[in-house]
Formats: sequence, C-alpha cells, structure tokens
Amino acid sequence: MPEMEGAVTPGAGGDVAREETPQLIAAGKVAGTPVYDREGARLGTIEDLMLDKQSGRVAYAVMSFGGFLGIGERVHPLPWSVLRYDTSLGGYVVDLDRDRLEGAPAYGPGDAPDWTSRDWGRSVDDYWGARSIWGAPGSS
Amino acid sequence: MPEMEGAVTPGAGGDVAREETPQLIAAGKVAGTPVYDREGARLGTIEDLMLDKQSGRVAYAVMSFGGFLGIGERVHPLPWSVLRYDTSLGGYVVDLDRDRLEGAPAYGPGDAPDWTSRDWGRSVDDYWGARSIWGAPGSS
Repeated sequence: MPEMEGAVTPGAGGDVAREETPQLIAAGKVAGTPVYDREGARLGTIEDLMLDKQSGRVAYAVMSFGGFLGIGERVHPLPWSVLRYDTSLGGYVVDLDRDRLEGAPAYGPGDAPDWTSRDWGRSVDDYWGARSIWGAPGSS
Repeated sequence: MPEMEGAVTPGAGGDVAREETPQLIAAGKVAGTPVYDREGARLGTIEDLMLDKQSGRVAYAVMSFGGFLGIGERVHPLPWSVLRYDTSLGGYVVDLDRDRLEGAPAYGPGDAPDWTSRDWGRSVDDYWGARSIWGAPGSS
C-alpha cells in the first residue's frame, strides 16, 4: 500500500523525528507534498487526507492542481493506493498524465462532493482502478 | 514542516460534506478537535496524526494539553484505538483521568520522540494498553 518512505522536506529544519521516521509520518507533513507524473512533471499538491473512520486507514489524498488551494479551485480525491512516494523527487508519483487527471472526479468549494453517496465514492475508485472501500454496488 | 494550507477551517463557511461524512473525515479536520475525559472535562486538543506508512493506518493522535501547541509545550501520542468520538461532545473521549494522561509518554520541541526506537513506541502502546504496531519485543 502507501509508499510514503522518506518524505523528508529538504531544508525544513529540525524536529524531523517528530514528523517522520522510517515507520511513521505526520499527517500535517503529508499536506503540501507535491505530486508528479511518471516523467517527473509536477501535477499539483496534496491538500489534505480523507480518513476512513471504520478502518482508521487513509482512504483518499485530496490533491489540487495549482500549488495551494485557491478560491474556486477544484480538488481531486486520489485513492491512497495509487500514490507512490519517490525519494529522489521528494514527492508522490502517480502513473498517469495530466489529461487523465483533469478528467478525474473532482469538486470545488461550492460543489461539495457527495461522499455520502456510495456511488460517488465508487466512481472515484473505479476511475483510478483502485479497490473500492465502498463495498459492492447495491450494498448501501 | 508544510502547513496544512488546504485544510478547510471548520466553521469557515460550511462545506461539511467536504470534511466529514459518516464514513470519511479529513485529517485537517481532526487536528484541533478537543479531547475529553469520561466525565466530559476537557483534557486537551489533537494537534496532528501520525500515520503508519506500512499499513496506511492512523497510528497515533498527537495531543496537547493546552488548546494549541505553544512554545515548549509537551505533546502526548495516544494510540488511535484509545480514542472514541462522541458526537454530543463534538470531540474525542479517552477513558482515563488527567493524572494518568500527565504521566503518559510525551515529548517537547527540543526533545524529539525516539520513534526510531521500537522500544519507545512499545512503551507508548503499553502505557495505553493498546495493541502495538511495533511487533514483539526483540524484533527489530
């Protein structure tokens, strides 16, 4: 599953052991981490993580295209399993290009995602080819 | 460390469905959530979450006593499994009193936790009676 190995922020200064070790990483450190495509082109930034309350697992990384979340900017939830951490880039890599990312399920500030609909959650997981956390279609 | 720029501020204009649903909650929303004892007395605030990279699970909630993290303030890592969310309080409840919390493993800004030592992690889990993520003693 998630490869978050070695997300060290260069030059961020002390307290590294508070924020990250080989086994643990602070959620607050993941937010702000860049996301790249396979060729190393920067696609955007992780803004927040959505946790699955039942399992206590990270379900989705919420990603924005433009660095920091601006007014009206749409964000994309990526299933956590599609992100791979690349220590040389210092960020996460997703195996797809910008066009495909732009077509992925997204939502904006005045356009809340319907996470309460399992169908919407499933559409996210389906788009990314990730194992769904929402159970089989028809189960509600 | 990267700030949580994208974290939507609770109360800053709704968007509840972005931050929390019956199944999901944003990591940025957990930070800042109050922690109470069984009697409903406020013990402190969750400052951040430590994620287990291997499993993708939340391992510890890092809690401070005094509202927001002040200079020199020590923080306490609580195994995620000891926290129970109480909807009527709007915060997490832990089944112990302040004295016991004050005696729990903690660390301060100039006093990084030795998360790289499995013994330290085990001491946290032992203190709280939580199932350890660190494996059996002797396994390194």
